Amino acid sequence: MTSRDEQRQKSRAEILRVAAEEFDRRGYAAVAMSEVAASAGLTKGSVYFHFTSKAELAQAVVETYFAQWRLLRQEVEERELTGLDAIRWMSLNVAEAYKNDPGVRAPLRLMREAEAIGVELPTPFVGWIEAVREHLQEAQDSGDLHGDLSVDAAAWQLVAAFFGAQEMSHQLTGCADLTVRIDELWHVVLPGLSVRS
Amino acid sequence: MTSRDEQRQKSRAEILRVAAEEFDRRGYAAVAMSEVAASAGLTKGSVYFHFTSKAELAQAVVETYFAQWRLLRQEVEERELTGLDAIRWMSLNVAEAYKNDPGVRAPLRLMREAEAIGVELPTPFVGWIEAVREHLQEAQDSGDLHGDLSVDAAAWQLVAAFFGAQEMSHQLTGCADLTVRIDELWHVVLPGLSVRS
Repeated sequence: MTSRDEQRQKSRAEILRVAAEEFDRRGYAAVAMSEVAASAGLTKGSVYFHFTSKAELAQAVVETYFAQWRLLRQEVEERELTGLDAIRWMSLNVAEAYKNDPGVRAPLRLMREAEAIGVELPTPFVGWIEAVREHLQEAQDSGDLHGDLSVDAAAWQLVAAFFGAQEMSHQLTGCADLTVRIDELWHVVLPGLSVRS
Repeated sequence: MTSRDEQRQKSRAEILRVAAEEFDRRGYAAVAMSEVAASAGLTKGSVYFHFTSKAELAQAVVETYFAQWRLLRQEVEERELTGLDAIRWMSLNVAEAYKNDPGVRAPLRLMREAEAIGVELPTPFVGWIEAVREHLQEAQDSGDLHGDLSVDAAAWQLVAAFFGAQEMSHQLTGCADLTVRIDELWHVVLPGLSVRS
């Protein structure tokens, strides 16, 4: 890679970082491309070199987020985590990321505002529901779950409970208590899921 | 009450109904007072007679919502519902209202957008957490809950799980499956709460 390519990649990453911060704080409609350029210390032309429109920039912010979760799921495999341990580990990692990283919070806001953006964005939640369902199936196959539990229903509800805790902690405490709340979530729901709790 | 008073009250209610629909669908920033007037079949002057600004209108939409929940809580008392029965009954009623009534969905969106509105809005969730906590306490006093369950933690988590299910159902199915999901929520969490399940 030439040093010009490197410089371009660095600029692109910086634009994405700054755009996520702005979208997270103020929402899609309120953010201007010129503000993103100014915050990134770049010219507006340089921002448009990488992203031809604000909608395309928003799309890239969302894609970066999905790429990050693919890495997290890889790490679950590398650590050989399965079943409820895998779900718990993922939930604490996602909570930590959501708390500290606007790049994780912004996409959720953007997906909620998708109508105003007018471009195709991935559907939120469904990837998580599928991942949680797979690990719940592992737990069921190992005899860890109560016999009458529906894996499909429990997966949907776990993702919803996690997402609700994340949102409530965000709105009530600016995420200050999020890690504690996700830990607490497990205390409350685990006896309903697992025969070993 | 004179017929002019009656007419004014009717206009006010109609403005609130229409404003909730618009705020729910498009968010605070996108809605103009003139559009609210047009949808309500009133002049802009008539809307401003009732609400001196868009922010005041948004505030009134949120207040109407809180008044509605005070009525729901009164109904719980009149029906003499207590403990887990009370919480379950409330959750199904709130889900039904959220599914069918923009007047219930709009305030949640407005409270999330409070920063852009620039007026004091009530904090979401805290009233529900307190109501659920009271009923969980009744359940605990009657020996219905597992001994080691923290009533404070469970109240927070139940409200979060409900809210998460509501949001996910909204975003994934336009609330089509909300009632089923809230029913399912109880199947998943009840064994973790109650000794009788």
